[in-house]
Amino acid sequence: MGGSFIMTQVDIQDRLKAFAVEFDRYLDRVLAARDDIPGELSEAVRYAALAPGKRIRPFLAVSCCTLVGGKRDDAWPVAAAVECIHSFSLVHDDLPAMDNDDLRRGQPTCHKKFGEAIAILAGDALVVLAFELLARDVRNPRQMGPLACELARGTGWSGMIGGQVADILGESQPPAIEQATYIHERKTASLIAAACRMGALAGEAPADSVDRLGEYGISLGKAFQIADDLLDLSATTDVMGKDTGKDAGAHKQSYPACVGVEQSRLAAQAAVDKAIMTLEPFGETAADLRSLARFVVSRSY
Amino acid sequence: MGGSFIMTQVDIQDRLKAFAVEFDRYLDRVLAARDDIPGELSEAVRYAALAPGKRIRPFLAVSCCTLVGGKRDDAWPVAAAVECIHSFSLVHDDLPAMDNDDLRRGQPTCHKKFGEAIAILAGDALVVLAFELLARDVRNPRQMGPLACELARGTGWSGMIGGQVADILGESQPPAIEQATYIHERKTASLIAAACRMGALAGEAPADSVDRLGEYGISLGKAFQIADDLLDLSATTDVMGKDTGKDAGAHKQSYPACVGVEQSRLAAQAAVDKAIMTLEPFGETAADLRSLARFVVSRSY
Repeated sequence: MGGSFIMTQVDIQDRLKAFAVEFDRYLDRVLAARDDIPGELSEAVRYAALAPGKRIRPFLAVSCCTLVGGKRDDAWPVAAAVECIHSFSLVHDDLPAMDNDDLRRGQPTCHKKFGEAIAILAGDALVVLAFELLARDVRNPRQMGPLACELARGTGWSGMIGGQVADILGESQPPAIEQATYIHERKTASLIAAACRMGALAGEAPADSVDRLGEYGISLGKAFQIADDLLDLSATTDVMGKDTGKDAGAHKQSYPACVGVEQSRLAAQAAVDKAIMTLEPFGETAADLRSLARFVVSRSY
Repeated sequence: MGGSFIMTQVDIQDRLKAFAVEFDRYLDRVLAARDDIPGELSEAVRYAALAPGKRIRPFLAVSCCTLVGGKRDDAWPVAAAVECIHSFSLVHDDLPAMDNDDLRRGQPTCHKKFGEAIAILAGDALVVLAFELLARDVRNPRQMGPLACELARGTGWSGMIGGQVADILGESQPPAIEQATYIHERKTASLIAAACRMGALAGEAPADSVDRLGEYGISLGKAFQIADDLLDLSATTDVMGKDTGKDAGAHKQSYPACVGVEQSRLAAQAAVDKAIMTLEPFGETAADLRSLARFVVSRSY
């Protein structure tokens, strides 16, 4: 088991890297500078969206689409839309009024490079772009409504943005596991789940498969966020490419703050196990999604 | 002419007021607080969106829909979506990193009331809500793609947000009429035009009517922005319900700064005339839209 486990980890990392190269080419084309856009704005948008990243959400969208028998090409607009939302969230989270971070993905944060006003507007533009890409590039017009609904719910006031608000308000409250779970489900898991559900929808999956892949996304997202909190405690800025060790100082609600490192690792592993169990009906075709779930927590060991 | 002109002005103001009461009831229901949204966030979103306003954009959406023979009810989701975008733009424009305003619609600005982080996130939530309302409430699924495209183009990096970037960058440049026109077309006119086009689309208008009403919106938007710049020069904070006289201090690109007050008034009137001329094929049914165009510049006399 140990050997094959390690093999799988190497494999999924290679697959993620290869996917990111392909996806970044697509995103680069989609975000090409245009005459009718102020140069500074398209520069800031491209800087934020095309900075090196693991592209886990686009990978999920494309993987869930093909898993249910959809065509790979049908998932690209969805993948790009979800990544635009993710990039927007990083730009706004890093702002001085929020987490006030100077480094992101190994580079100066957007507001450090372009100033605060342009960074706020670049984030705004990325949200709008996400919906524009769906509206413009999704080939089946009947899918547009359901896809936009999923993206809005994953992103909006009951999803990621709601989670970010809870995260900020949680800083002034004592650590509580219910609070941390509430924040994780919204801030991180809801967009990851939306990526999965939207990929499945793009692949014309039946409703129960869409729901199942959404549940996988929720569990994966929880595991991902706990692993990220653990990494923030232990890793150096150099490894993470962003400022680390700040969460404890900012009194963020996190699993480590609530239940300690060991219990947090167990909780992350439990979430991964649940994610993998959810995939059971898909059998061997879901191998990538299983490997990805294992990989997500392996980062924090 | 003088008498009937004044009558029309009184009339359109009454009609706008009656419309605003009806629209605000709809928006209030659409933005109802929910258990799954952090209380502070829905409070900030509702504070921003439901603050007293003229509701010109929703009025345009509904008027253009009925003008082309559509049902009034079909335009409400469009009207609400456009107003959410408008409210978002006010919240973000007022931020310390942007125009740094303390007053808006006669009340403390969103960040003065809720803090900067929550204000940024409330603005973000309003953008997402706009697209969610379209996706959820537009009855004809075939319209969803075209409507979302229009809203994204009017709002995004080639529309309003692009105009806001140009506005900020323009502060460090000497006044130039081409620059001011570029900014007005994007920052103000593009969302107003989107409201008109989307209303027409919701009413199942043929493409040439959609385009014509979009042109009307562009001219109206230009007139509106010049009038707003003139008001900023002359009105008191009390009348405007927001900080005034700041544009000149901030070296904003504006018609008055470029060509003086008298030429600016002529330019606004010329834009109104053009807007009214565009409506010619619609005959008497477009009376409201004509009155609205006249009303928009009458504010600055």
